[in-house]
Amino acid sequence: MGETELAAFVFVVTGDSGLKRGRNHPVGPAAPTVTKQEAQEAMIIVLKPDHTEEDLQRIVRKLEDKGLGAHISKGEQRTIVGAIGDERVLRETPIESWPGVESVLPILKPYKLVSREFKPEDTIIRVNGREIGGRKIQLFAGPCAVESREVLEEIALSLQPLGVGFLRGGAFKPRTSPYSFQGWGEKGLKMLAAVREETGMLVVTELMDPRDTVLVCKYADIVQIGTRNMQNFRLLTEVGNIDKPVILKRGMSATIKEFLMSAEYIAAQGNEKIILCERGIRTFETETRNTLDLSAVPLLKQLTHLPVIVDPSHAVGRADLVPAMARAAIAAGADGLLVEVHVRPEEALSDGPQSLRPAAFASLLEECARIAQAMGRTL
Amino acid sequence: MGETELAAFVFVVTGDSGLKRGRNHPVGPAAPTVTKQEAQEAMIIVLKPDHTEEDLQRIVRKLEDKGLGAHISKGEQRTIVGAIGDERVLRETPIESWPGVESVLPILKPYKLVSREFKPEDTIIRVNGREIGGRKIQLFAGPCAVESREVLEEIALSLQPLGVGFLRGGAFKPRTSPYSFQGWGEKGLKMLAAVREETGMLVVTELMDPRDTVLVCKYADIVQIGTRNMQNFRLLTEVGNIDKPVILKRGMSATIKEFLMSAEYIAAQGNEKIILCERGIRTFETETRNTLDLSAVPLLKQLTHLPVIVDPSHAVGRADLVPAMARAAIAAGADGLLVEVHVRPEEALSDGPQSLRPAAFASLLEECARIAQAMGRTL
Amino acid sequence: MGETELAAFVFVVTGDSGLKRGRNHPVGPAAPTVTKQEAQEAMIIVLKPDHTEEDLQRIVRKLEDKGLGAHISKGEQRTIVGAIGDERVLRETPIESWPGVESVLPILKPYKLVSREFKPEDTIIRVNGREIGGRKIQLFAGPCAVESREVLEEIALSLQPLGVGFLRGGAFKPRTSPYSFQGWGEKGLKMLAAVREETGMLVVTELMDPRDTVLVCKYADIVQIGTRNMQNFRLLTEVGNIDKPVILKRGMSATIKEFLMSAEYIAAQGNEKIILCERGIRTFETETRNTLDLSAVPLLKQLTHLPVIVDPSHAVGRADLVPAMARAAIAAGADGLLVEVHVRPEEALSDGPQSLRPAAFASLLEECARIAQAMGRTL
Amino acid sequence: MGETELAAFVFVVTGDSGLKRGRNHPVGPAAPTVTKQEAQEAMIIVLKPDHTEEDLQRIVRKLEDKGLGAHISKGEQRTIVGAIGDERVLRETPIESWPGVESVLPILKPYKLVSREFKPEDTIIRVNGREIGGRKIQLFAGPCAVESREVLEEIALSLQPLGVGFLRGGAFKPRTSPYSFQGWGEKGLKMLAAVREETGMLVVTELMDPRDTVLVCKYADIVQIGTRNMQNFRLLTEVGNIDKPVILKRGMSATIKEFLMSAEYIAAQGNEKIILCERGIRTFETETRNTLDLSAVPLLKQLTHLPVIVDPSHAVGRADLVPAMARAAIAAGADGLLVEVHVRPEEALSDGPQSLRPAAFASLLEECARIAQAMGRTL
Repeated sequence: MGETELAAFVFVVTGDSGLKRGRNHPVGPAAPTVTKQEAQEAMIIVLKPDHTEEDLQRIVRKLEDKGLGAHISKGEQRTIVGAIGDERVLRETPIESWPGVESVLPILKPYKLVSREFKPEDTIIRVNGREIGGRKIQLFAGPCAVESREVLEEIALSLQPLGVGFLRGGAFKPRTSPYSFQGWGEKGLKMLAAVREETGMLVVTELMDPRDTVLVCKYADIVQIGTRNMQNFRLLTEVGNIDKPVILKRGMSATIKEFLMSAEYIAAQGNEKIILCERGIRTFETETRNTLDLSAVPLLKQLTHLPVIVDPSHAVGRADLVPAMARAAIAAGADGLLVEVHVRPEEALSDGPQSLRPAAFASLLEECARIAQAMGRTL
Repeated sequence: MGETELAAFVFVVTGDSGLKRGRNHPVGPAAPTVTKQEAQEAMIIVLKPDHTEEDLQRIVRKLEDKGLGAHISKGEQRTIVGAIGDERVLRETPIESWPGVESVLPILKPYKLVSREFKPEDTIIRVNGREIGGRKIQLFAGPCAVESREVLEEIALSLQPLGVGFLRGGAFKPRTSPYSFQGWGEKGLKMLAAVREETGMLVVTELMDPRDTVLVCKYADIVQIGTRNMQNFRLLTEVGNIDKPVILKRGMSATIKEFLMSAEYIAAQGNEKIILCERGIRTFETETRNTLDLSAVPLLKQLTHLPVIVDPSHAVGRADLVPAMARAAIAAGADGLLVEVHVRPEEALSDGPQSLRPAAFASLLEECARIAQAMGRTL
Repeated sequence: MGETELAAFVFVVTGDSGLKRGRNHPVGPAAPTVTKQEAQEAMIIVLKPDHTEEDLQRIVRKLEDKGLGAHISKGEQRTIVGAIGDERVLRETPIESWPGVESVLPILKPYKLVSREFKPEDTIIRVNGREIGGRKIQLFAGPCAVESREVLEEIALSLQPLGVGFLRGGAFKPRTSPYSFQGWGEKGLKMLAAVREETGMLVVTELMDPRDTVLVCKYADIVQIGTRNMQNFRLLTEVGNIDKPVILKRGMSATIKEFLMSAEYIAAQGNEKIILCERGIRTFETETRNTLDLSAVPLLKQLTHLPVIVDPSHAVGRADLVPAMARAAIAAGADGLLVEVHVRPEEALSDGPQSLRPAAFASLLEECARIAQAMGRTL
Repeated sequence: MGETELAAFVFVVTGDSGLKRGRNHPVGPAAPTVTKQEAQEAMIIVLKPDHTEEDLQRIVRKLEDKGLGAHISKGEQRTIVGAIGDERVLRETPIESWPGVESVLPILKPYKLVSREFKPEDTIIRVNGREIGGRKIQLFAGPCAVESREVLEEIALSLQPLGVGFLRGGAFKPRTSPYSFQGWGEKGLKMLAAVREETGMLVVTELMDPRDTVLVCKYADIVQIGTRNMQNFRLLTEVGNIDKPVILKRGMSATIKEFLMSAEYIAAQGNEKIILCERGIRTFETETRNTLDLSAVPLLKQLTHLPVIVDPSHAVGRADLVPAMARAAIAAGADGLLVEVHVRPEEALSDGPQSLRPAAFASLLEECARIAQAMGRTL
């Protein structure tokens, strides 16, 4: 079928007398033209057992008024209406609240640009000669917050010889308490840039406020959107308009679908250089800070073409469990690791308990290198 | 349509050339006969975008081999197969794992005997002249565990003048630690019976083990199945065969659907005297022991004809929040309250922190009586 | 003890030979002066069973270096160190990651200005002659999104005669999909203002982006911070600096403590006109959109002096369950209700399934008025 | 300090005038004698800010009445009482509900026999010459349910050449619906035994009901306790008395602490041959059946000496994600894998969608063998 064809459902139900076609809505000139770019969505509307004929007629009329195809199937136990048409129209139509409707089942995925179906091959993001999403597993490491030029430098100089390509560090810090250290702002960004100059490591840092976009982009090589901002839609739109790769961290209670919808926000503005980061979800368990959902890795690799990295540090919140989770992340198929490392965790202004010392991190890398090799990849 | 008729879906898809009927599977002599008692289930099978024609043919053949109707709809973006037939067969058929299948959407509810559709009017459970599920909101109160004849008596004598119809108390106690007090067993049951003799209050007590069924039924007026046993299916089957009402507590991580399926287990054996008890679900919040899900009350009243009571004590785990939650439960439509009361919570062998003293409970009842009246009910 | 006194713990442990004082750290001139405004915090540091004497000495030295009191208790099984001092210093010190430390138990609450201990009496927020947090339960109702001047007016004119004091409606809409309707922006704010002119209802609308603060404040009587922005700390700081009341909605996976910390962010900037709104938390249950945590109401009323309102619409996500949850909220002690009402939910551009029609809302109010009366309050 | 010594806390608080000893409770002849076997527990009792002197005196008196040490510390902001003594007494004492008490913080872990502190070296379980918990990673594979002798044999014969040592298969099946296939019972056990005879693979099968213990033990080499029975304490006690190894699956909403407490139940009866199995916990995510909590693996290995295996099949509920999760489990340190394998998943009576075919399982094993080697282990 060509691009301008119309797909439509008809649901028909038989009695014992044989097949009886349900009311079929002829799809005439009013039918919306569909191109691949604005794909149609189909929904299955299940009616309540006690719906009236009037309910049914009203539903069909309303769908048709909106230019949607409506196709009825009357079963012994349930009547079902198939609705099909422009996905924006379908999404905006509150079918669930119509009288007589019990439930509405969408069939197609609500995201498109980031979906594997839209682009089957893996996206590899290139930044200053480094590739994210390729055979090499990339390392993003550093302190939670940029504390001082000296400490940052000391950390970076311990990481660089280990082959860490990206230095992470927050200049703007989202903190639960207003009384906690909130980061050095531009001063911190400058420290990051200075240490990049010195070590050649690229800079990853968080953007918290759309008002800081220009500032942060001036210094960062990759912009990070934090877990608490995964559904800060204005911020997502903002980074959709920049020309830098974005690390999008999964919200602590975000479903995989919501995570991908947030990525779609960025992509919809034109920036498709998105790196998804699983960093643990909130559950009832209290021994770990969050529960690292490693099944998100193969699942995301299946649903999207974007690179997927894992942050074991925020996930578990305890340095002693980070190495095991880093190894597991690579075995699960992650394209990179984001790890908190500090030369003196006991003095870190933020997230000390989950930060590894350089020596522990070096030994983590040795273990991970063996796992990467077993996976046919390099570190 | 009569009882022996066959409902069937046909999904048809048109191209721009107009309506084109999909392959319609004639439903001949092999079609299963359906009566109202063994209602059919319908499922919608969504195929993967890259399924092969062979996949599709195999699916149809398999469905037919099992006596299920199979009806194809080829859309521009998706092919869908409607399957319909005997619900047991459908449930046992692992359609989701067949090659080419993306997802399977069931349409009908998986429980039947306990559903509101099956029996539209409220079930009122009568036990020794008391009604549960009627206009009067019933009170079930007492200590977590039966500790001694004296303490139990003291508690009961404080409750009886307040109009509490049911005395609760555990003779067998499920305890997280093997080193905690596990209950007095039969000795405790005898204490309950003796206090019933004295006060006229009926006895509610927990059954933990199918081997104790006869013993517990000898003394209890209502048998309780605890939250940790909500999916102890052998125990559910056991109480499905007794002639006493059962209080079934929701599992701490059970969905409403699973809760109703567990009730269906009991009903399927012939015992329909089931009282559902919402008692809090496990969430990430740590200030309360569990999170009381009061929306379960109106939801259950809609989905089932069974009475619904609420246990605010186990839900919040703190005596100070119990009165507010008891009031809210009644306002939400609960048919009864299950509250832990102890004369000396500071000496209770179990669950002291969430037990109310009789005076506090009396004041809770005063507040609740006003809410009940506002709801057109009595306490 | 006076304001400038120093509190300090000493933990001492005895063997069978009698009491043996642990090392007591003399608190000399270096001890920080404490005023009520900058209260001290105390922490209990539990050491690992296998800690070394060196670990212990290092911990004590580090605490002292930061001007914190350190007090040791050596037990048979565990050594414990009490740390006390300036709360900011304590919070910034990553004690948990120090060698030899097993866990750290804070004793005081991490929020202050919003705590009930800080201000025992209820805060009543007055806005244009209306009181929130007083005996009268306030109603905030209206559509999810402002759709058109006509529809908004029609909704408002249906609400005003029912005694609804506040009209809610989003001009800026946070939507999960970038392809959904995002709100009319300033145009929508103007519609709200025009309808306020006409009906006398005050305007509640959401602020999503710090860049819109001036704009939104120009039109809104109360500014709402949405659930996805509860930890958008820059936005919280922003509304901490305005002179309008703020409705802060609980994040869908926020603990009560985090919720209060976010309120503290606003209060710390000087704006104490904060209305907390419970709107459901994310759980495993899928029958409802979220799980309404009504125990949050009495719990918050205990922990904070701020008014607490409830949004049953977003909590359950289904109009049919809203009335029961609204009644329960009032019975639990809520100071107000935030309800989605639309004249034609079936045409609403957003959240149709959870919106009530004016007639259903009027009947909800009748029921709620009876519950309010039972609570000694008015609607 | 010797075994009979008494540890005790004293909390003392100073004003600026120097150190002032709090009331110290002399621990005389009444003090309980402590041996290593019945270790003491310590608790820290934090009083409410508004507690009275009377509250304090009452708390101390009560603790002393129970033979517990009580040690007071009055701070500027909080009074704290340290309680220490026999752990059973402490656990049974409902201190939290005493007037004036705000919270109680336990210091020691509530489980003992299964703790790493109690037995530092790894437990290796030997069964018919096979070792679980040693260097070799053990494989437990087979169908969810035993369906027929033929199918079971076909599956086993496909697994045996792959080096799978243990054949899993349910003869008694816990099913959510009473209308689903419940297993063949003893007939199924006999099929398992027959196939063991033929293949040499050992048999793992589930025990659901204490009444079936003798029967199941007659045929099984390892008895499995399912996730829904993790807190079926009577069943745990039952298998604590048998002489077979037990696989204990984590409850779907069980914390690590509860999981270990359930293991302690078994160990407390004398059976220490316990294999812990992480199988996914229930979260808000719906793309996977459960969320596999792989951080449980290193955490459990740290807290307990027992072997830990992982069931990726039930965790994710989809065959396509099982291989990645199996690899990750080994990289996280698991001692074994429990995987559902079926020759024809599309015909499986239970859990078809999550079952792998033998060929897919063989390729999973190849990948896992490489990861195991990278971990210095064998498959």
